[in-house]
Amino acid sequence: MYDNPFYTPEAQGPYRMHRIGPFDLEEGGHIADLELAYATYGELNEAKDNAIVIPTWFSGTHQTWEQVYIGEGRALDPTRYFVVVINQIGNGLSTSPHTTSDPSIAMSRFPKVRIGDDVRAQHRLVTELFGLTEIALVVGGSMGAQQTYEWAVAYPDMVKRAAPIAGTAQNTPHDFLFTQSLMDAVTSDPGWAGGEYASNTDVADGLARHAGVWAVVGLSTEFWKTEFWRGLEPLDGGPPYADFVEFHRRFHEWLFQLMDPNALLTMGWKWQRGDVARHTGGDLAAALGRITAKTVVLPIDEDMFFPPRDCEAEQRLVPGAELRVLHSVAGHFGLFGFEKTYLDELDQHLGELLATPA
Amino acid sequence: MYDNPFYTPEAQGPYRMHRIGPFDLEEGGHIADLELAYATYGELNEAKDNAIVIPTWFSGTHQTWEQVYIGEGRALDPTRYFVVVINQIGNGLSTSPHTTSDPSIAMSRFPKVRIGDDVRAQHRLVTELFGLTEIALVVGGSMGAQQTYEWAVAYPDMVKRAAPIAGTAQNTPHDFLFTQSLMDAVTSDPGWAGGEYASNTDVADGLARHAGVWAVVGLSTEFWKTEFWRGLEPLDGGPPYADFVEFHRRFHEWLFQLMDPNALLTMGWKWQRGDVARHTGGDLAAALGRITAKTVVLPIDEDMFFPPRDCEAEQRLVPGAELRVLHSVAGHFGLFGFEKTYLDELDQHLGELLATPA
Repeated sequence: MYDNPFYTPEAQGPYRMHRIGPFDLEEGGHIADLELAYATYGELNEAKDNAIVIPTWFSGTHQTWEQVYIGEGRALDPTRYFVVVINQIGNGLSTSPHTTSDPSIAMSRFPKVRIGDDVRAQHRLVTELFGLTEIALVVGGSMGAQQTYEWAVAYPDMVKRAAPIAGTAQNTPHDFLFTQSLMDAVTSDPGWAGGEYASNTDVADGLARHAGVWAVVGLSTEFWKTEFWRGLEPLDGGPPYADFVEFHRRFHEWLFQLMDPNALLTMGWKWQRGDVARHTGGDLAAALGRITAKTVVLPIDEDMFFPPRDCEAEQRLVPGAELRVLHSVAGHFGLFGFEKTYLDELDQHLGELLATPA
Repeated sequence: MYDNPFYTPEAQGPYRMHRIGPFDLEEGGHIADLELAYATYGELNEAKDNAIVIPTWFSGTHQTWEQVYIGEGRALDPTRYFVVVINQIGNGLSTSPHTTSDPSIAMSRFPKVRIGDDVRAQHRLVTELFGLTEIALVVGGSMGAQQTYEWAVAYPDMVKRAAPIAGTAQNTPHDFLFTQSLMDAVTSDPGWAGGEYASNTDVADGLARHAGVWAVVGLSTEFWKTEFWRGLEPLDGGPPYADFVEFHRRFHEWLFQLMDPNALLTMGWKWQRGDVARHTGGDLAAALGRITAKTVVLPIDEDMFFPPRDCEAEQRLVPGAELRVLHSVAGHFGLFGFEKTYLDELDQHLGELLATPA
């Protein structure tokens, strides 16, 4: 355990903790006192039929959703909907390796967690706290899309609409290897010390290499070619970026070096194994065939590791699902919402989905 | 210096050495006794107008060209053409960090080499050894494409036809960062020891991580999705690959772990800075406008880091050049020639180019 200021309300915006308590994990591990960090926007109506649930992505928290996606007049409108963003297990805010007070699961001893564990815990949260019996929409990006599919497959009677953005229901071999290269960059740093570092700053080099792989695969060749970064407000509060190498250092390296290595590794291992076909003995078509939610599958055109064709292959297996390809020169990192055009497209698709009777 | 059996005629097939002698480098370094390793196929005719020059790619040697691309009845037909494949400086066969007997440039002291140095040395070789005043075709893939463009810009009176495959004349920011991630994987291995390791086996972990990034970006998402590797004869001579992780280990990790880390770093630094606009004060259009060779630009459709659109942007700047997109599910590694369809397409395009009067 150590203090990391990145995982605080000061850095991430306000959130609350919900205590799930003792929680058995699919891989056989156990968390004696699981807590989920969540944030809500808007009010649950009397019919309890206006809830939107949003799971988070790799390395992310509820904050991007609050800042970029949720707002009055937007599709995710808190004056109409009750929006609940739930941080995934191990992301640094929900029960995580570097924050737990339970020494049996601290740091390198944190158990293996799966997407199915996340969604089961989230189901506990929304039923226990809010008494939900239906969810108007589950929407998430990347690992949040993995969780969105998991929600729709595991709780078909509850999920009325689903919108997986830039992610798949069953992780691909390419994604497995990509994630492995991200994880290897961290664990190869001698400062990682088998997960028992004293601070994330001990693993700065490994986190920088991790960021280096993200820079190559997370964005797109065209993002770099067109120098899209010139139009971005520096995240670190510094002067404009002088060149692409400086942008890389002050954006990717800066951001990932703030994070906790064990949190990234917990999420990475989980991402590699996302697979709704675990519900159906490995039969992906059978798993996706269980979905009754009105589903719109939303890949990003320039995504280098969740390409539209992989998402389309799954969309064809979901009864009645539609494919709507989003456009972002930022590729997968289009999820950060750099472009108003991308956000307008997404709002359009989510708005139409929410307007569809379910 | 140390002995590495990968860089021998037993492993790479026969080649000869040509002594260039003292050689000044663009970056200010000096090689007192530069030697280039080369292999020839076929006979130079009396008119000396049937020569084809082929520079090599990152981590490659003349061997793939011999085994996969050159043959009777093929476009690169040694019964019609005099084919000269020249290994790039620092590739392990031409003068290289781990083989030089000059202690002032051995291992970590090897000087920075640029694409322009390679091509200037290759020009020396083909004029000194063979008295060439014209070259019927320069063709190369990846870093060999960088050198092909350099040939066409630096020696426009000599190069009659040019065929850059899966590469660019000016390296892109995305490619720079990709190459950096490959290099960082190696130099972060404590066994690299600042370039003064005793053997490539000391850097096995770094070379494995290097291979891990190649697996993600060198192939394509579809290669992995379709399990294309199931159809490949195991390079290592072992049994069929059981699954994609085993294929990755026994193909990428096995292959890159045979190689010399300083050789990869020498080539990587060079690759990052390939730029024909160095001839024209940074003006790419002016540099490519110098080309008089009949040029066919040959990107690979699934290439994740030399995408067709980047190649097309340069093709438009080469007078009279044509774009012909090759198809390979293996992406950039399509260059290995896994698919007969890809090789047939390439032979067709190169055959038409060679039949075009120049």
